Amino acid sequence: MRRVLSWVFNAPKQLHPKWLAAHPLRTKSPSFMTCTSSFQGDGVRNGTQSKKSLLSDPQLFDAQFDELLTELTDRDFQDPGLTDALSRLRQARACFDWLLHDCIIDRSSRIMVYNVPGGKRNRGLSVIGTLRELLPPAEVTQDAVQRALLVGWCIEMLQAFFLMADDIMDGSQTRRGQPCWYKKEEIGLDAINDSLLVEGSIYRILRRHCRDQPYYVHLLELFNETTFQTELGQTLDLMTAPPGQIDLSRFTMERYKTIVKYKTAFYSFYLPVASAMYMAGIKSEEEHNNAKHILLEMGEFFQIQDDYLDCYGDPAVTGKIGTDIQDNKCSWLVVKALEVMTPKQRSELEACYGRSDEASVAKVKALFNTLQMQSLYHKYEEESYQRLQKLIAAHAQNLPHSIFLNFAKKIYKRNK
Amino acid sequence: MRRVLSWVFNAPKQLHPKWLAAHPLRTKSPSFMTCTSSFQGDGVRNGTQSKKSLLSDPQLFDAQFDELLTELTDRDFQDPGLTDALSRLRQARACFDWLLHDCIIDRSSRIMVYNVPGGKRNRGLSVIGTLRELLPPAEVTQDAVQRALLVGWCIEMLQAFFLMADDIMDGSQTRRGQPCWYKKEEIGLDAINDSLLVEGSIYRILRRHCRDQPYYVHLLELFNETTFQTELGQTLDLMTAPPGQIDLSRFTMERYKTIVKYKTAFYSFYLPVASAMYMAGIKSEEEHNNAKHILLEMGEFFQIQDDYLDCYGDPAVTGKIGTDIQDNKCSWLVVKALEVMTPKQRSELEACYGRSDEASVAKVKALFNTLQMQSLYHKYEEESYQRLQKLIAAHAQNLPHSIFLNFAKKIYKRNK
Repeated sequence: MRRVLSWVFNAPKQLHPKWLAAHPLRTKSPSFMTCTSSFQGDGVRNGTQSKKSLLSDPQLFDAQFDELLTELTDRDFQDPGLTDALSRLRQARACFDWLLHDCIIDRSSRIMVYNVPGGKRNRGLSVIGTLRELLPPAEVTQDAVQRALLVGWCIEMLQAFFLMADDIMDGSQTRRGQPCWYKKEEIGLDAINDSLLVEGSIYRILRRHCRDQPYYVHLLELFNETTFQTELGQTLDLMTAPPGQIDLSRFTMERYKTIVKYKTAFYSFYLPVASAMYMAGIKSEEEHNNAKHILLEMGEFFQIQDDYLDCYGDPAVTGKIGTDIQDNKCSWLVVKALEVMTPKQRSELEACYGRSDEASVAKVKALFNTLQMQSLYHKYEEESYQRLQKLIAAHAQNLPHSIFLNFAKKIYKRNK
Repeated sequence: MRRVLSWVFNAPKQLHPKWLAAHPLRTKSPSFMTCTSSFQGDGVRNGTQSKKSLLSDPQLFDAQFDELLTELTDRDFQDPGLTDALSRLRQARACFDWLLHDCIIDRSSRIMVYNVPGGKRNRGLSVIGTLRELLPPAEVTQDAVQRALLVGWCIEMLQAFFLMADDIMDGSQTRRGQPCWYKKEEIGLDAINDSLLVEGSIYRILRRHCRDQPYYVHLLELFNETTFQTELGQTLDLMTAPPGQIDLSRFTMERYKTIVKYKTAFYSFYLPVASAMYMAGIKSEEEHNNAKHILLEMGEFFQIQDDYLDCYGDPAVTGKIGTDIQDNKCSWLVVKALEVMTPKQRSELEACYGRSDEASVAKVKALFNTLQMQSLYHKYEEESYQRLQKLIAAHAQNLPHSIFLNFAKKIYKRNK
C-alpha cells in the first residue's frame, strides 16, 4: 500500500476543538466523531425510514443519476421554456422515421449516458461526503442528501464537459476505455455543441433543485469561477504542450504547477468541498481560502502522483498503459528530469520525447532511470506529506480536519 | 425603403396609458415621450456633466469595450484567484521570448479583440436603449448606464462564443469579412477553448459589476437559460442540416421555426430586452412572458428576412454574396419552396441544392423564381407585420410599446 494511504487511514478521527467552539450548533454524534468506516461503508446513515436509507452514498449517487436524466429529458415536456420545441419534436416523431432514432431527447440522453457516469465519481461523491462531515446528522435530511447528490452530479457533468472538449483539442482516441465521444462516426465536431449541452445542464439542475436555498447564488458563482479557472489551465496547457509540437524549453516546474492548479486542482479538489461548505452555510471568504490552500496543495500532489503512475504504475493495477512520453505530455517526470539532467542528456531527451516508436520510449525511460526519477518522486512525496500536515494544522482552523483527510482518501484511495 | 422600416418609423411614439398607470414612478420626460430621433442620434441624454455625457450610446458602448478588456486582462493581476498564475506568467515573460508574443494575457486580449466587437453591436446596444425606455431619466445614472453597456457587451460576448464554436462545427471559412478564428493557422481547434474563455468572461463581468444589484441572480439565470436554449437550437440545426449531408425531407416549416426560435430569437431578441427589464426592476413572470411572446415573433420574422436577403438582397447594399444555397442551409426560401413545389420540381431541387457549381445554383434560383418566392415572401412579410401589431396590442400591456418598435428599428434597420 502506498504511503498516501497510510497517512489517510491513520489520520486523527476527532474534530478539532476549535471547530466545535466556532460552530456550537454543529455538534456531531459520537459515532461520527470516531467514524472509522471507509467511504464505501458509511452510507447507511442517512437517518430516514425510507427504502433509500438502506443504500450507501455511492448507491444513492448512482440512483440519483437516473432521476436526473429523466428530469433533463422527459420532464422538459412540462418545462414552459421548452414546451414548444419539444412538443413539436414529439409531433414530428410521428411523421419522420429518422426522428425516432435521432431526436433531440434521445440524443441528449445518449450524450449524458455516454459521457457523464463512467468515471470514478470521486469528485461527485465528495460533496455528500463533506456535507456529512460538516452538518450534525439531524440536519442531513433526505432533501439535503438529494441536493448534495445532485450537486455532486453537477461536478461530474462539469468534468464530462471538460473532457469531451479537451479530447477534441488534444486529438485523443479513447476515454475511460471507450472511444472519445467526438471519435464516434456519427458525432465528429458536433461533440463541441454536445459538450456545451452537458455544461448547460448543470445550471438547469442547480436552478431546479437549489433555487430556493440561501446558497444558490454562491453555487452559481462557484461553478462559473471554477469553469473559467479550468479553461485558463487548459489555455496554458495548450500553449505549453501543443499537440504535435515538441519544445522542451516550455516545460518548467513553475509552468507545470500553474497548469496543474488551474486545469485540475480547482475543479477536482476545491469545488466539491467548497460546494458542501456553502451548502452547510459556511460562506466566509477566510474559511474558503483556508480550505482552498490545503486542497490545492493536495491537488498538486495527486496530479504528480498521477504522472508518476503513468510511467511507473503497474498496468495490471492501473488498468491502463501510460502514454505520457509518447504524447509529449508536460508531465512532472519530464519537468523534474529537465531540472537535474546534463546538457548532453537533454539533447538525448529532445531526440526521443514525444515519439511513439518503442525505441524512443525505451530511451526516455532509461534516461529517467539513470536520473533516479523514482527516488526523486519518493522524496517529493515525503516532502509533500509533511507540507500538507503543516497546512492542515495551520489552515484548517474551524474546519474539521477529517474533511481534508477523507477527501484525499476518497479521491485518491488508489494505486490506479 | 422596405416595409419593415415604415412601420418602425411610423410607430406611435407615446407610452401606453396602461403602462403609466401600472408604473406611476416611471413617468418619462416629454422629450422622451415624443422622441423622434434615430438611435444613433439619441445618445446625448445620459444626463451627467462628465465628458462622457457628450457621447452617444454607440460611442459610450465602444469606449466601454476598451475598459472591459483592460479589466479582463491587466486587472487580473490584482484578482486574488489568478494572482499566482498571472504573476508567474509575468515573471516568465522575462525569461522566455515566446511568452512575450503568446502569453495568456496577450492571447485572451487577442481572442476578445478579434471575435467580439466586429459585429453590428445591435444586440448589445439594445440593453441601454431598452433601459432608457423603461426608467425615468433621473434613474438613468452614470453607474446604471455603465452597467447596461457592460451587460450589452456580455450579450455580444455570448454571440461571439456561439459564432466561434458554430463556425468550427459548420466548417465555415469567414466571419464578418475575416477568416474564422479557428481557420487562423496558429489557432485551429484551440479555438474551442478560446470560445469557452469568451463565454466564461461574461460571468466575470457580471460578477464584478452587478454582484450587489438586486437583479444579479436574475441575470445569471437569464444568461444560463438563454445559452442552453441557443445550444438546443444549434443541436436541432446540426441534426437538420448536417454539413455535407443533403436530405431535403428534414426541411419542414415546423422544424425551421423551432430552429430559428431557439438558435437565434431567444438570444438576439428576448435576452437584451429581458436583461434591461430585470435591470429596471421588472421581474414578474407574466411581464417577461408577454415580452417574450412579441420578441420571439419578431425574431422569427427577421431571420426569415435574413434568409430572403441572402438570395434576393443587393450585394452592393448587403456587402456580402449569399451562399445559403451552396451551403445546404435550412433557409426559409427552400423550406417554403418545398411546401409549394411539384414532385418533379422537388427532384430537380434535390439534384442541385447544396452544390457549389454555378450551374446548380442558377437552377435553384430559377426554380425559386418559377415558384414566385419573392411574392410569397412579401405575402409572409405583410402577414407577419399584422400579427406583430396584434401581439403588441394584446401582450405589451404594462410595457411601453416603443421598446418593441425601437428594438426592431435598432436591430433591423437594414436592408443588409
